[in-house]
Amino acid sequence: MAAASTMFSDCSPSSMTARLLPLRRIHIDSTLFRSSISSPPLPCRRTISSAFAARMSAETSAKVIDGKSIAKQIRDEINIEISRMKDATGVVPGLAVILVGSRKDSQTYVRNKKKACEAVGVTSHEVNLSEDCTEEEVLNSIAGFNNDPSIHGILVQLPLPRHIDEENILNSVSIEKDVDGFHPLNIGRLAMRGREPLFVPCTPKGCIELLHRSGVEIKGKKAVVIGRSNIVGMPAALLLQRENATVTIVHSYTKNPEEITRQADIVISAAGVANMVRGSWIKPGGVVIDVGINAVDDPESHRGYRLVGDVCYQEACTVASAITPVPGGVGPMTIAMLLSNTLSSAKRVLNLK
Amino acid sequence: MAAASTMFSDCSPSSMTARLLPLRRIHIDSTLFRSSISSPPLPCRRTISSAFAARMSAETSAKVIDGKSIAKQIRDEINIEISRMKDATGVVPGLAVILVGSRKDSQTYVRNKKKACEAVGVTSHEVNLSEDCTEEEVLNSIAGFNNDPSIHGILVQLPLPRHIDEENILNSVSIEKDVDGFHPLNIGRLAMRGREPLFVPCTPKGCIELLHRSGVEIKGKKAVVIGRSNIVGMPAALLLQRENATVTIVHSYTKNPEEITRQADIVISAAGVANMVRGSWIKPGGVVIDVGINAVDDPESHRGYRLVGDVCYQEACTVASAITPVPGGVGPMTIAMLLSNTLSSAKRVLNLK
Repeated sequence: MAAASTMFSDCSPSSMTARLLPLRRIHIDSTLFRSSISSPPLPCRRTISSAFAARMSAETSAKVIDGKSIAKQIRDEINIEISRMKDATGVVPGLAVILVGSRKDSQTYVRNKKKACEAVGVTSHEVNLSEDCTEEEVLNSIAGFNNDPSIHGILVQLPLPRHIDEENILNSVSIEKDVDGFHPLNIGRLAMRGREPLFVPCTPKGCIELLHRSGVEIKGKKAVVIGRSNIVGMPAALLLQRENATVTIVHSYTKNPEEITRQADIVISAAGVANMVRGSWIKPGGVVIDVGINAVDDPESHRGYRLVGDVCYQEACTVASAITPVPGGVGPMTIAMLLSNTLSSAKRVLNLK
Repeated sequence: MAAASTMFSDCSPSSMTARLLPLRRIHIDSTLFRSSISSPPLPCRRTISSAFAARMSAETSAKVIDGKSIAKQIRDEINIEISRMKDATGVVPGLAVILVGSRKDSQTYVRNKKKACEAVGVTSHEVNLSEDCTEEEVLNSIAGFNNDPSIHGILVQLPLPRHIDEENILNSVSIEKDVDGFHPLNIGRLAMRGREPLFVPCTPKGCIELLHRSGVEIKGKKAVVIGRSNIVGMPAALLLQRENATVTIVHSYTKNPEEITRQADIVISAAGVANMVRGSWIKPGGVVIDVGINAVDDPESHRGYRLVGDVCYQEACTVASAITPVPGGVGPMTIAMLLSNTLSSAKRVLNLK
């Protein structure tokens, strides 16, 4: 981990014209906090209390949890395991990705996943269906991959066009190939003591992995998860609970989210609202995992926008003991965990440990 | 609801010799809090602070949430629905109960369930297998009921003998007949937003029903669930979350459980430790749902023991705005919810609303 003081500033005046979100990622619970914040969000520094300002003037101390580097380390480990698997069995893990329609962001995610597969030795298979395809066509694609022994993981890129029932589609993925971990049977096992899910959803798994690899103890700690989406917030809370943290989920109906969050030794924020979590929300010495990836206007950037998290990074750095940056924190971990799940699936089929 | 001041006292000196628990009910997470309390537990009054004693001297104010009367009301409603169903379709709901071995407490529970079925018009079918039966025999019984259209709910009385794999057994119950709601697919759907479980586990469902029928608002409230068993604590937390409470689960690794619990507008305690939750744990005006049913020595009782909850009732009454007694609180709701689930299952098959 590197010192945070030299990192970019998310809370500078240039984000005053922040807007909500052309590039928001699909796994964020983006509708949750609209009622509790002003839109467009204020720049972080505008409303801070004098007590907090005094704390801010102290030297920044947070360590940066470098997701990019940790994810690379994990991909390297996966690469080595796959080489060994190939030598021993002749088999390599296979991942199928189903993309419906032509959303630019979805195409980018799928392309990135394919690249990451190639780099570690996972074979990837892509099916592109047109925006107006039928639900049956999607189900047929999934059925084909369910029955194909060379495929160990199946991923349906979300969101799907509106005329297709997402629940039906996700339920049709074989539980043994549900590398996204979104099947309710996997979620149920994740929630239950003494049960083991076959797969854990990639983004929350990445959050926990960041904590583990940064030496953050979870057991007995107070944790707050902000947001309760099916794919980040809720499973993140279940994972923290499995690690024996005392977990509270903060959501749009929570009164005093700031007060509750400030009690947490560990905060995982997955609200999808730029700079919502101010420095004053963070317990001194707390650890912050920021899942949010939100685009805010930035005329100085050649793209006209830049990406910031849910957490007002500049402020939080002065209070937290460790924090993930955006970008370069949780983001790279999601694909690394997808590769990890695909490898686990292949090992399970091959009966390898 | 009646005033609590005339209720029995759980925290009197006669419970000084409290012991842990010949009659503890199977759904309580009994191993959770052993490390955090002294055993045998102290009588409530021994260690209370002077500030709390001063509060206690004030008039008691908690309303008693009368589970016995609410459960009767629900059973009456079920009885009326079943009569209508029978008139309209000729079908009545059928419940199968599988009992393995001859544990006295399990036999009592099964007998009580049969009686409750008869009283509302649910036909009950019981299978008694010997303590040394094979797992296959249990699975065969379940398979028979899975295929029997006159059976709408299947209940395997827990605990099972050690040589039988509980997970295998519970997983073999058809999801459409899982009136206990213990199948991981049901739990997964309970955890996920936008999904609906076919059945909700009976005891936590009963807790929420008590809150609803007592006019306690849940949305936006802070709730603490003490205990995280698969059959009470965890699903109770998921249900409160679905009702938009801000939920924290307190468990054996939680530091300062008293401080955390005292923040809660609603406490559901399912720890299985007599009198663990003292008056000082309760927020003034909070609502307390006590799932614990613990036996403590009582030489004055003809049985030699009496039943008390997790919550020190006498103390909590002086702080809470409403509280469930033990017995007569959550207890009677569990069977009422089992009947409700069985009726729902039959209605689903018959396509009735």
